[in-house]
Amino acid sequence: MSAAFEAATGVVAKGDGAYAARIEPGWDIAGNANGGYLIALAARAMADAAQHPPLSITAHFLSPGKVGDCLIDVDVVRSGRRMVTAAAIVTQAGQQLMALLGTFGEQSPGGPECVAGRAPELPDFPSCVRTVPPAEGSGFGERVHVRVRPGDVGFLEGQPSGTPEVCGWFTFDDEPFDQQHVDVFGLLQATDAFVPVCFNAPGVPVAWAPTLELTVHVRGTPGPGPLRCRFSSRFVQDAMFEEDGEIYDSTGRLVAQSRQLALIPRG
Amino acid sequence: MSAAFEAATGVVAKGDGAYAARIEPGWDIAGNANGGYLIALAARAMADAAQHPPLSITAHFLSPGKVGDCLIDVDVVRSGRRMVTAAAIVTQAGQQLMALLGTFGEQSPGGPECVAGRAPELPDFPSCVRTVPPAEGSGFGERVHVRVRPGDVGFLEGQPSGTPEVCGWFTFDDEPFDQQHVDVFGLLQATDAFVPVCFNAPGVPVAWAPTLELTVHVRGTPGPGPLRCRFSSRFVQDAMFEEDGEIYDSTGRLVAQSRQLALIPRG
Repeated sequence: MSAAFEAATGVVAKGDGAYAARIEPGWDIAGNANGGYLIALAARAMADAAQHPPLSITAHFLSPGKVGDCLIDVDVVRSGRRMVTAAAIVTQAGQQLMALLGTFGEQSPGGPECVAGRAPELPDFPSCVRTVPPAEGSGFGERVHVRVRPGDVGFLEGQPSGTPEVCGWFTFDDEPFDQQHVDVFGLLQATDAFVPVCFNAPGVPVAWAPTLELTVHVRGTPGPGPLRCRFSSRFVQDAMFEEDGEIYDSTGRLVAQSRQLALIPRG
Repeated sequence: MSAAFEAATGVVAKGDGAYAARIEPGWDIAGNANGGYLIALAARAMADAAQHPPLSITAHFLSPGKVGDCLIDVDVVRSGRRMVTAAAIVTQAGQQLMALLGTFGEQSPGGPECVAGRAPELPDFPSCVRTVPPAEGSGFGERVHVRVRPGDVGFLEGQPSGTPEVCGWFTFDDEPFDQQHVDVFGLLQATDAFVPVCFNAPGVPVAWAPTLELTVHVRGTPGPGPLRCRFSSRFVQDAMFEEDGEIYDSTGRLVAQSRQLALIPRG
């Protein structure tokens, strides 16, 4: 697992469900902490309180997070035999950044199987396009290592594909791409590391697409290697779009599904 | 809108975010309050506190609700200019039934549009199969009026279609089907009124499929008439399945999307 990501999402228990954490520099988009990063940070506190890894976690974004100390207040709502439900609020300098609700428990491999979804076909890792090159200096693109299928980045030159879909590889940057092993918290980060799919829809400006809500279902434990990801939207309408994420490990097995509801950028 | 549903999901503000409500008889499956019904009940309290209708609402199910009084405690987490985020807990006789988190605001029609999804093709309302006939006496099937596409109910006779999909019509029962006008709270009910799609997957027993989490995105304001619904799963694996719902109004426009994470029944 990425040592840099682990260090940047560490939390310290203060008792009574309170956790101290710090939004580290370099995990932001234009000064605002990336949403997936914030979810991973909060999920570490919730998972510690729940004593299980996340199965399903929902985050509502309240205000942008900046570099600096923050506080995560976790409330274990129900502690069952196999699953624990917890709510959390992330606060920074008296302002609430994010509200979360999640269920935590272990994966249960096996049982009946009926799978229609498939990992996207992707050119190999080096042949895909790094969308946020280090030179851009936002920081985030230097920490995660996202490589997008060449056909999905035409919007960068004013040529959206016309289909609100973005597929590509995800891993972290601090080790060679084929030596990373993304864990469950890294999966949370992966669900919000790509460019918004609406950039490939006709007539949508390339600008900030504020997320209202993001839910991640952890569906498996990833094997080693970079993750294959598909993000897409089937309903860009009435000022909003849903963005559905599917994340597969190197064996082609689904390990997470995500869905967010976001506002179409206004340009 | 269904007068019976409105009466059964009424809430009374008690001050300080507390709402009194009652789980009414007839909205249960085998004695346990239907999940969509409970979400609608809680959403009424949350929408009252937020002074806006729901845009996105997530519910985690903690324990089954029974007929009788319950309490909904709403906490307005953030009150923005256009949107309000609220959390809620539903409690009955000291036991927590459900934890919710949602964002509330008005629909914003218009803007760029890119829609790939389509309403399912369905035989007309009377030609579809009422899956829970009144004679069965569970109550719930007498209150909602769900009609499933004939090809999707083979599991009732041990012949699952092999595809985890269930499509059909939704409305309420207390007026003729073509005179109902389902509102936004009715949409919440519609997302959890059909049989679980896993019943049509090979090798899955027809038994209770406990929901961990259900998220609904309200994507429009329904026009009059019964709703066209599609529920499906693409990943039945490792003891869990996601159930994706799409709900269209009579004009064929998407008005809600839902996704739940549920446990595959054990038989």
